[in-house]
Amino acid sequence: MEVTPPEREAMARARELAAAVLGSTSPNPPVGAVVLAADGTVAGEGATAPPGGPHAEVHALAQAGERARGGTAVVTLEPCAHTGRTGPCADALLAAGIARVVVAVPEPTELAGGGAARLRAAGVEVLEGVERAEAEDGALASWLTGVREHRPRVVWKVAATLDGRVAAADGSSRWITGPEARAEVHRLRAGCDAVVVGSGTALTDDPQLTVRDVEGARQPLRVVVDRRGRLPATARVLDDAAPTHVSSAATPRALLDELFARDVRRLLLEGGPTLAAAFLRDGLVDEIVMHLAPKLLGSGAPLVGDLGIPTIADALDLDISDVTLLGRDLQVRLKATRHTGDAAAGNGRD
Amino acid sequence: MEVTPPEREAMARARELAAAVLGSTSPNPPVGAVVLAADGTVAGEGATAPPGGPHAEVHALAQAGERARGGTAVVTLEPCAHTGRTGPCADALLAAGIARVVVAVPEPTELAGGGAARLRAAGVEVLEGVERAEAEDGALASWLTGVREHRPRVVWKVAATLDGRVAAADGSSRWITGPEARAEVHRLRAGCDAVVVGSGTALTDDPQLTVRDVEGARQPLRVVVDRRGRLPATARVLDDAAPTHVSSAATPRALLDELFARDVRRLLLEGGPTLAAAFLRDGLVDEIVMHLAPKLLGSGAPLVGDLGIPTIADALDLDISDVTLLGRDLQVRLKATRHTGDAAAGNGRD
Repeated sequence: MEVTPPEREAMARARELAAAVLGSTSPNPPVGAVVLAADGTVAGEGATAPPGGPHAEVHALAQAGERARGGTAVVTLEPCAHTGRTGPCADALLAAGIARVVVAVPEPTELAGGGAARLRAAGVEVLEGVERAEAEDGALASWLTGVREHRPRVVWKVAATLDGRVAAADGSSRWITGPEARAEVHRLRAGCDAVVVGSGTALTDDPQLTVRDVEGARQPLRVVVDRRGRLPATARVLDDAAPTHVSSAATPRALLDELFARDVRRLLLEGGPTLAAAFLRDGLVDEIVMHLAPKLLGSGAPLVGDLGIPTIADALDLDISDVTLLGRDLQVRLKATRHTGDAAAGNGRD
Repeated sequence: MEVTPPEREAMARARELAAAVLGSTSPNPPVGAVVLAADGTVAGEGATAPPGGPHAEVHALAQAGERARGGTAVVTLEPCAHTGRTGPCADALLAAGIARVVVAVPEPTELAGGGAARLRAAGVEVLEGVERAEAEDGALASWLTGVREHRPRVVWKVAATLDGRVAAADGSSRWITGPEARAEVHRLRAGCDAVVVGSGTALTDDPQLTVRDVEGARQPLRVVVDRRGRLPATARVLDDAAPTHVSSAATPRALLDELFARDVRRLLLEGGPTLAAAFLRDGLVDEIVMHLAPKLLGSGAPLVGDLGIPTIADALDLDISDVTLLGRDLQVRLKATRHTGDAAAGNGRD
């Protein structure tokens, strides 16, 4: 049976609900759910709560109450069939009398899989793969990178002049971009589980790396890569405004392994040109957010350090996914064109 | 009396007509004209012909014929009152029985000025300054720069990676951008009177610098700045596909003076980082067209050479005027924020 227009609308809303909780659910996936009553009207909405709290479906069912009976659940990820810190969502849907379930992304892990099968066995109609690409590219992207590559998804954020300089010849860089772009950086941080800089940036700029002026935001883990123990105890990043992890990881992958073990699924790389180049050389940047100021400097630190690329044909290729003006500055969002591997088993969620 | 909706529509169309002849009218201004009959319907349209040919108003009046009588002429620039290679447009409007004239930009030169006064003296209603800023920022911009600063308007075009590299470490740069961006370069050239490179670019890339695949386009003057006589006789820029000027001008301003004397009013600077930096340092870049490829190189020639700017507060400020995707590449159009001087007298047109 085909997906209906109210179900498509509910799916778009479910993606929005999921996006709003990005950065607060890891290691669980940020999922959105909408329950439609039998007459097709919205009866309940929900999104994944922080770890240990209810899943999206449970939220939406609680809001719908008796109106869920004979209705449809529209969810961005296949309802789980296993008992972790919460019970199986498939069972909750059955108990509420849901007659039909519309799913965007099939559950990729063995541990939590089987929800659709359990629902079908109980006579519920299940439609899978509805607007799957949109859901996979949206709030679920970071969690899916974790499932497939057992590492956090890496978003590199960089602010530069249009001629690709992140600082002037004398090292000055405050402020390259305007207040609108700087406010957007706080929103970017709020959607991530960790914010990473190198010790060079920590020493030069002494940033606090907290989320400011974003309502209801959690503070992501602050991470400083400091192999040589250069970070002074007085650094602002060590204040008590948020948790901080100082890492001596020898490679980007080793750092990602450390942070994955700490439940980090989405990471904002705010380091300087050297740290960014190390991640890029190892193919460990998934998304880039560039804030380009309408300025020219003609000298100063380049946007990215040496990538070991000798000739134009070997340039690192990206795809522009979005272009927006932020005040007088330009925001360009890009994705790496390299393809990631297929879904792997394991790596369950609760 | 207020401008009417049909007159506003006619003014927008007049700007379009003017833009379509940009690059073919210098040293005369590219002007657009629309004649509305007494009932407000469009009776004739025209734009400035190449030097020696009729002005926009004359074209439009010829097309309108008897329908011009009692009608309105809508023009982007005040009709001239002097006899050059063609007669005064003000007289042509009077002879055709035009009752009302709507003008965007008042004539800034003394030589050609006085048209509005002559029309008013003959009982014609004249409305001036209608959508003036739009007309001044459009096709007339280059001609106005000539009137005010006695030099061509300079449009710097540059193609680079998003990290601000115009070539890779080994010097390779073909092709940084895709076919859509390269086609746009030919359209940019077609709107200019001259295309300028330094001898370095001429030697390294051996470009032909002609306009290709643009219907009806004139070939702009090809200019190579070659102070040390390095350009070989075999260079493609010296072929007979278009005229070429080899200059030994010592400074950007001296080059602009040379080209202004050759009736160049709009110039496309396609030189490398060194030539571009020389123009920028001297405050002689009015517009920038950047083609940014979604690629990273991490090394290679920078987008622009040293500008002598030591600190971020002294960065050269620009304003983004337009952002467009060209295939997979990004086009960013910018304007210098520096203000140009007021209109000066002299420098007539015919």
